Amino acid sequence: MENCACNTCDAATKKLYEKAKSERIDTIWDRALAMQPQCGFGEMGLCCTNCSMGPCRIVKISEDGPKAGICGATEDTITSRNFARAVAAGAAAHSDHGRDIALALYHAGDKTRIRNEEKLFKIAGEWGITVEGKDTVQIAREMAERALGEFGKVFGKLQFLQRAPEKRIKLWDELGVAPGAIDREIVEVLHSTHMGCDADYRNIIRQAIRAALSDGWGGSMIGTELSDVLFGTPMPKKVEANLGVLKKECVNIVVHGHDPTLSEAIVLASRDPELLELARKQGAEGINVVGMCCTGNEIAMRQGIPMAGDFFQQELAIVTGAVEAMIVDVQCIMPSLATVAKCYHTKLITTSPKAKIPGAIHIEFNEQKSLEIARRIVKDAVMNFKNRKVEVFIPDDKSEGRIGYSFEAIIKALDRVTNSFAHPSGTVKPLVDAIKSGVLRGAAAIVGCNNHRQPHNTCHVTLAKELLKRDIIVVTTGCGAHACIKAGLMDKDARKYCGKGLATVCELLDIPPVLHMGSCVDISRILVLLSEVAKYMGVDISDLPVAAAAPEWMSEKAQSIGLYAVASGVYVILGVPPAVTGSENVTGYLTKGLESVLGGRFEIENDPVEAAAKIAAHVENRRKRLGI
Amino acid sequence: MENCACNTCDAATKKLYEKAKSERIDTIWDRALAMQPQCGFGEMGLCCTNCSMGPCRIVKISEDGPKAGICGATEDTITSRNFARAVAAGAAAHSDHGRDIALALYHAGDKTRIRNEEKLFKIAGEWGITVEGKDTVQIAREMAERALGEFGKVFGKLQFLQRAPEKRIKLWDELGVAPGAIDREIVEVLHSTHMGCDADYRNIIRQAIRAALSDGWGGSMIGTELSDVLFGTPMPKKVEANLGVLKKECVNIVVHGHDPTLSEAIVLASRDPELLELARKQGAEGINVVGMCCTGNEIAMRQGIPMAGDFFQQELAIVTGAVEAMIVDVQCIMPSLATVAKCYHTKLITTSPKAKIPGAIHIEFNEQKSLEIARRIVKDAVMNFKNRKVEVFIPDDKSEGRIGYSFEAIIKALDRVTNSFAHPSGTVKPLVDAIKSGVLRGAAAIVGCNNHRQPHNTCHVTLAKELLKRDIIVVTTGCGAHACIKAGLMDKDARKYCGKGLATVCELLDIPPVLHMGSCVDISRILVLLSEVAKYMGVDISDLPVAAAAPEWMSEKAQSIGLYAVASGVYVILGVPPAVTGSENVTGYLTKGLESVLGGRFEIENDPVEAAAKIAAHVENRRKRLGI
Repeated sequence: MENCACNTCDAATKKLYEKAKSERIDTIWDRALAMQPQCGFGEMGLCCTNCSMGPCRIVKISEDGPKAGICGATEDTITSRNFARAVAAGAAAHSDHGRDIALALYHAGDKTRIRNEEKLFKIAGEWGITVEGKDTVQIAREMAERALGEFGKVFGKLQFLQRAPEKRIKLWDELGVAPGAIDREIVEVLHSTHMGCDADYRNIIRQAIRAALSDGWGGSMIGTELSDVLFGTPMPKKVEANLGVLKKECVNIVVHGHDPTLSEAIVLASRDPELLELARKQGAEGINVVGMCCTGNEIAMRQGIPMAGDFFQQELAIVTGAVEAMIVDVQCIMPSLATVAKCYHTKLITTSPKAKIPGAIHIEFNEQKSLEIARRIVKDAVMNFKNRKVEVFIPDDKSEGRIGYSFEAIIKALDRVTNSFAHPSGTVKPLVDAIKSGVLRGAAAIVGCNNHRQPHNTCHVTLAKELLKRDIIVVTTGCGAHACIKAGLMDKDARKYCGKGLATVCELLDIPPVLHMGSCVDISRILVLLSEVAKYMGVDISDLPVAAAAPEWMSEKAQSIGLYAVASGVYVILGVPPAVTGSENVTGYLTKGLESVLGGRFEIENDPVEAAAKIAAHVENRRKRLGI
Repeated sequence: MENCACNTCDAATKKLYEKAKSERIDTIWDRALAMQPQCGFGEMGLCCTNCSMGPCRIVKISEDGPKAGICGATEDTITSRNFARAVAAGAAAHSDHGRDIALALYHAGDKTRIRNEEKLFKIAGEWGITVEGKDTVQIAREMAERALGEFGKVFGKLQFLQRAPEKRIKLWDELGVAPGAIDREIVEVLHSTHMGCDADYRNIIRQAIRAALSDGWGGSMIGTELSDVLFGTPMPKKVEANLGVLKKECVNIVVHGHDPTLSEAIVLASRDPELLELARKQGAEGINVVGMCCTGNEIAMRQGIPMAGDFFQQELAIVTGAVEAMIVDVQCIMPSLATVAKCYHTKLITTSPKAKIPGAIHIEFNEQKSLEIARRIVKDAVMNFKNRKVEVFIPDDKSEGRIGYSFEAIIKALDRVTNSFAHPSGTVKPLVDAIKSGVLRGAAAIVGCNNHRQPHNTCHVTLAKELLKRDIIVVTTGCGAHACIKAGLMDKDARKYCGKGLATVCELLDIPPVLHMGSCVDISRILVLLSEVAKYMGVDISDLPVAAAAPEWMSEKAQSIGLYAVASGVYVILGVPPAVTGSENVTGYLTKGLESVLGGRFEIENDPVEAAAKIAAHVENRRKRLGI
């Protein structure tokens, strides 16, 4: 029974879970099992702790028991408040990440630290920042100031909203959901969900939508765009993936979390000849930096660094016994890492003032001294090589894939077929042509995390395969991307899973059928792509034959993403129900009612095969509506 | 048994609860009873729903059961995160209230709408806004802009922090808790408490402190100060209190919530001769506006409008059968009001876009058309007079008290004894002299809400009386003020409860021994008073023989207030434990550890007699330390 706890389709994960068991190390699967049964009130969103008269729990399953909280809040009020607060926290996490990137740009101070002048100038143009007579650093600082202003400006709407199709912008204005300053939208969710404020679930969700849109078209988009300015826009490249990328004979450094600022510096430091020499002196063949979760996505997309694993594999990386240091920044870092690291020689190093872990070593990162700090950390890892305790076991499972499909990279790939004057270069026209002709039926995003409520990776991979065979091209980010690359879906060979149309498109453009677009913050890239396609076609995003799914989502960020996607007009399937199912009204509003308001809606479907069928049905419905 | 549900020392409450029972109306006490038993995990803060792998519940009471969440979060992480998020939500509510006041000032547009030029100029001076050559409206707008900037400015600390004693400012800087932009501090709490971010309870609480300070010395202080600019600084006046202030022969309008903007307009409209004539035509003798909760405090402090009741009495006001309209804005408005109002003729009118209630009439308030909207609302109430359904029962319980003790009013009262050249006028010197001499042993604030976990009003009143007899002067706000005035503690006659020293001071200054300082946002007035006393004495706030207590607190705002008071150096007694008791570390840090860091700390004590003894001990300890 206990061995069944690790329900995954990934071989490396299975093997290392067994190793962990044999070494009596508890991992996420064991803790999930020990947590059963979980509280049904909480799962259904029917528990309210928004004031100290609570916790109040609404009883839905029988006639007895309270039907309202002590203040009189109904299940509609309670579930929608809980949902809105989760969205606000998710929007806060993404947006604060975006702010940190903007601060890094503000402090860049040196032209060599701005690797993408082209994008800098492009955004400057978009924002009306004059560039004539200014040097790069000055422009970057001005742009950073403007970006930082987006979080707290007193009046006006977010700048990036202008990237949306005209119809969408108009709809947001009509509905009163076009967000102003990012931080304010989030704070207003907290205020309106405070005890004795908003009790109207539609109104509560309205404010949650504002906060979510301020994430997708605000904080996240700032994070993505300014990361590209600082570190370069991702372009296609081959990378290896899964825990098999660890190297027994090398000093292994795992960078984990979300912010690329530190990990970029770690990668640079790991190439320092002095440190490489030191590593050799310690008996290692070299320094092997690998990435985990979204930090992994960030440096894989830009630097081709191997993608070591997803959210559920973070503990297992340490269990290999081969990791000298795991360096973490913010978000999705299990506090359990400290406990697991203690059983091995691994140094767990926290670096953000916003995320310390008891039992970890804290070396605070600081953009001004990034390389210096990175060198110190890499040196610590190198010196730890000799301290390996247990027998090292690195599973031989690894796969290869082509990643790096930023919006710009996709446009460039499309250029391959714009080989006549009839096809203006640098547009989404070839993609639109393929969709219109029916060679491609549509597109779907598979995003999100891992969650013990769903079999690990299985849902991501099954859903992707089911879509590919229906000629629906897949874009992915976050832990969804890890699952897909591990399953070989970013490989040329993956064309075997595709329908004939999609296979032809992949052949023609020389792309895999699943396109890795980045970290979870980079879902903003998908918004840009959708907007450009819709604008090119003269329609709204909600008219497109596209959908999104988060089959194994777990975090509050995923709830914010889901809601901003819905509010942007996308049909979004959640593999795990959000904690609103205790209210028929709220569940109905999110999964049905919203469509007539925003053109997008949620669907709850845990079975990936069913989810694929629903996406296909939605895609065909939209094709019909478009008359294509 | 059921009749015991209403545990209160207030006679009007008891009588109307009986009426409600006889009319089969469920009120807060019935719902609280029906909610028993409440979830122990939640009460102890041991339940985590910060990601959809949860709810995760930590079992403390037995050896079996999970000791960490699925991600590995311990009870320290989970409880501190829950606490920090509650503080953030409370800070958000207060601060967003402050923002709305700043927006009202920004849009004032007309000199007649700025009733307190003196304070406008005073704050302008403090903030370095030049006033020469500018008219009042222009200065007001500039100040409003600056105030609004405090919520989102990219760099720099909050302006009002400068009001604190020098030692305190230095300490905040050293500890890294001096807050920047208010909204950002709140958002950063959400980010750092997101799944997989901060796991270190001290660090989590550190960020919560920043958010709390951004409330007390930021949002709340802006709310108070700019309300004074707009509507006048409260000065001593007599008011009546308790539900007996409703008048059977009049159109009764209850204004309820927190924001004074609307209620000030309602009061004006209720004096409109046309509407008064209309009321007479409907058979009423007049229009009787009364206030509930903190809206009640706001208009009582400035307009002398009767204080109809506290948080727990809001439903009972409707149960009288005599309320034509209850007009609500934001915070502490029970959603149950809609259900109760349906059983009577009362129109429940919501007015804020941030707080709608299903079943209520929504008439959106708008500062630019405030009087017009207020007139419409008052007219609706007047026309509803004829629709009274049940037999009207207004209990004859009401009391009288002297309120209006803003900081400025207290200074003015102190002026009564500055009758020689040795006493410079307009300072806290007489108060300091009284404390130094020991005539007054110290001062305590009694603030906060009502909570079914404590006997209603009993704790506020008992604690106050216990302190008075020990020559500790009491200041109060919020629902604590309602409890005290109802019990006669703001009356001249209340000197009978005082020790000899305090009685003498009250006699000399012609003040009651319990000073009503305003709404819960106005606890910022207490911060100003403490600062001025500390500065005059050349010490820090934490050196003063003062304390605070929230014996019946309920809301997240109270948690923010408690924490900013502690972080300002105050000893704070909570009558209801915050949901952190599941962690010995977190509880220990809040109730002990913080003292060595910040000079203030929490104490959990539900017994008001014990609480008074503890406050007295703390006061005497501080006197000893000061050598007085």
